[in-house]
Amino acid sequence: MQDTSETITKETLAGQSGDLAHERAPEIVEALNAREPADAAKLLRSLPAEKAIEVLDLPGLDNTCEILAELPKDTAVSLLSGVSDDRAADIFKELVEPLRTTLLNGLNPETRNVISGLLAYPERSAGSIMTTEFVSVPSSWTIAEVLHHIRMVERTRETVYSIFVIDPVKKTLIQAVPLRRLISGDPHANVLTAAPARKPLMISPEADRMEAARLISRYDLLAVAVVDGPGHILGIVTVDDVIDAIVEESTEDAQKFGGMEAIDEPYLRIGFGEMIKKRAGWLCALFLSEMLTATAMQSYQSELERAIVLTLFIPLIMSSGGNSGSQATSLLIRSLALHEVRLRDWWRVAVREVPTGIVLGAILGLIGVVRITLWQTLGLFDYGPHWVLVAATVGVALIGIVTFGSLCGSMLPFILKRIGFDPASASAPFVATLVDVTGLVIYFGVAAVILRGTLL
Amino acid sequence: MQDTSETITKETLAGQSGDLAHERAPEIVEALNAREPADAAKLLRSLPAEKAIEVLDLPGLDNTCEILAELPKDTAVSLLSGVSDDRAADIFKELVEPLRTTLLNGLNPETRNVISGLLAYPERSAGSIMTTEFVSVPSSWTIAEVLHHIRMVERTRETVYSIFVIDPVKKTLIQAVPLRRLISGDPHANVLTAAPARKPLMISPEADRMEAARLISRYDLLAVAVVDGPGHILGIVTVDDVIDAIVEESTEDAQKFGGMEAIDEPYLRIGFGEMIKKRAGWLCALFLSEMLTATAMQSYQSELERAIVLTLFIPLIMSSGGNSGSQATSLLIRSLALHEVRLRDWWRVAVREVPTGIVLGAILGLIGVVRITLWQTLGLFDYGPHWVLVAATVGVALIGIVTFGSLCGSMLPFILKRIGFDPASASAPFVATLVDVTGLVIYFGVAAVILRGTLL
Repeated sequence: MQDTSETITKETLAGQSGDLAHERAPEIVEALNAREPADAAKLLRSLPAEKAIEVLDLPGLDNTCEILAELPKDTAVSLLSGVSDDRAADIFKELVEPLRTTLLNGLNPETRNVISGLLAYPERSAGSIMTTEFVSVPSSWTIAEVLHHIRMVERTRETVYSIFVIDPVKKTLIQAVPLRRLISGDPHANVLTAAPARKPLMISPEADRMEAARLISRYDLLAVAVVDGPGHILGIVTVDDVIDAIVEESTEDAQKFGGMEAIDEPYLRIGFGEMIKKRAGWLCALFLSEMLTATAMQSYQSELERAIVLTLFIPLIMSSGGNSGSQATSLLIRSLALHEVRLRDWWRVAVREVPTGIVLGAILGLIGVVRITLWQTLGLFDYGPHWVLVAATVGVALIGIVTFGSLCGSMLPFILKRIGFDPASASAPFVATLVDVTGLVIYFGVAAVILRGTLL
Repeated sequence: MQDTSETITKETLAGQSGDLAHERAPEIVEALNAREPADAAKLLRSLPAEKAIEVLDLPGLDNTCEILAELPKDTAVSLLSGVSDDRAADIFKELVEPLRTTLLNGLNPETRNVISGLLAYPERSAGSIMTTEFVSVPSSWTIAEVLHHIRMVERTRETVYSIFVIDPVKKTLIQAVPLRRLISGDPHANVLTAAPARKPLMISPEADRMEAARLISRYDLLAVAVVDGPGHILGIVTVDDVIDAIVEESTEDAQKFGGMEAIDEPYLRIGFGEMIKKRAGWLCALFLSEMLTATAMQSYQSELERAIVLTLFIPLIMSSGGNSGSQATSLLIRSLALHEVRLRDWWRVAVREVPTGIVLGAILGLIGVVRITLWQTLGLFDYGPHWVLVAATVGVALIGIVTFGSLCGSMLPFILKRIGFDPASASAPFVATLVDVTGLVIYFGVAAVILRGTLL
């Protein structure tokens, strides 16, 4: 579709919008994403307002800003007033000036304040993904009154499955009552009779959004209340927002682990320059550090000249260190993210990784020795008169390097976390680079000991 | 806690269980996880049955099998009969014989059949994470009747937020009615009057569980119906199960990308031997393929002897190929997982990666040339009379290798998917190894051209 979108005429658009109007919003989003913003805007306008709002309400819609820019101001404003305020805030985050201010001023003062309030919360905070559309009732109401209230607001509130009970005087949150408990309660009893035994779980708007995600998945909630210092409820984070957050975070982590800056757009949508920017930074940083290998090699030039045979195994040995390091890093990044391992556990990890590394290194070392012996004895290649010592060098070096790689790779996430960085920025290439230089030093160190008096 | 758990006496246990009984189930799980199975079992027994069941119902509980083994058979059976059947099935999956059969036979026939049924579904299928505890009503009922029914079952059903309406004759699923629409509907009207316009979303029990996850997050559902061929509802997959599945999958992907088999236990809980097994396999496979670099180097031995200076840049150049490859792979693995990119898009990705690689390679090549020129002119190191040609070799080789790395790394996930493997098994070390050998060939190939007649 994307490739033919330019050729779509008004007629076909109209025709399609006719069918589209009967589609589910997510399907319409897909159709819009396959079009240029201009066409998408036309299509959006041709939809019934209610449907268009539903579509705009979905985070999956690409180029939302470009599409809004194509719409007449009034249409854009009325659509934005319709979408849930947390989604509207997300959209405004990405809008560029002057459109941003124009549209924001177009909204009625109340909505504008709500959205400006949401925009004020830091990126990735619970506040930034919460919605202010929730059902709250005074604790003086009866269950019947609450149910009646829900019937009134049902269509306009994003979620009615948790009802938040407020102290009528202090206006603070005192309970969260699940809807299912309300309907099985006695209508004439006070709403609090349907409340669970314990206080509701709350989170501060400044807390990390993944904290909200952990609460919701840990306690199997549909929504968690976001409250300020004094305990007034500001909004709720709902389970669907949390799923989006979890997926987004793991995508970013995967990209970071691959050794690049996280990109927030689908692969095929991100611009060429943007793509270069996201990848060149880390690549250059890694390249510059990796230059130390050249420096290291230079300092071993005399050994190299005397024992060319050593160079043959350099890539093999270095990559093994990088690989074992990358294994350890990926393991620990996740364990830290899932809180399976705490910062204070670093030494317990270290005392596990060292023996693990030694065993893994010994396995690889053995394979290496066998390989050299075979090639030599089968006459496939001549590693020279001291081939046994060369084999020994490779074997011992592998044990040292794999052990160092595992230790290095497992500690890196802890170090990053300790100094306040995201452990997930410890990428596989990052670890490999760290290990490479040391790998060379270990290799030539071992060689110096084993080959002294013979090759070196 | 973990370290002192051996010293805990019955008294303290009893004491603690007293406090624990008032804790939320997830907190109790944490306390149990910090103990040896034997102690955890004692503690579990000392809890009120209802609470113990709540605890056992949480997926977060470690060593569930060992704990059950410590319990008297009757206690274990009665607890297992209490937990939700999907969780029970998960537990039975991990139980070892003969305990498995013993406990399974202990259950009442009905529960046993349900659980055996769930156990029959393939790993990672929607059926394997669904619950058979849902509310279904005949389409002949009124809203009042349905609400009354819900009040009756509320305590025993895992979720009552979607009510599934069944054809009274064919017994097939015809609608899913959200609870909130029921309570705002007219009590005397038929239940279907509260149903949404369109048919409910359904999924087959054999479908991948991530398919269910995508449906639920795409349509912001609380549960999706699992139906057999004829359209009978077998169970539902709820949003909380889906969150667990998403987190589990991204952990596995992260570990696989690190170049190891996915482990399903927390880092600190997995045994030493198990850890070696999970890591050694890939490490050896990579080592064996990486041996090709030694073979490649051997075939270039004469060049190496004539131009030692070339060896100095081998680690630098090879790592750059691996890094760019790992970037591209992590990007595409996620894009494929999120369905941003389809298999058929491979060529669109390829035509993006080649220019990207050329630009990135040129940037690194430039840095490399500058580095060599600086060291030479500042007299930090002598790359010989032909240092300009050496610099040129490094620069050109980098363009070739980074381009090849990006292309290779971006295509690998497609190839794996095409031949029916999980794209996520394309790990960073895997790509690096792939690129290393070719990197050497490119490097020496470029050298042969540029340095012919001078160094070579």
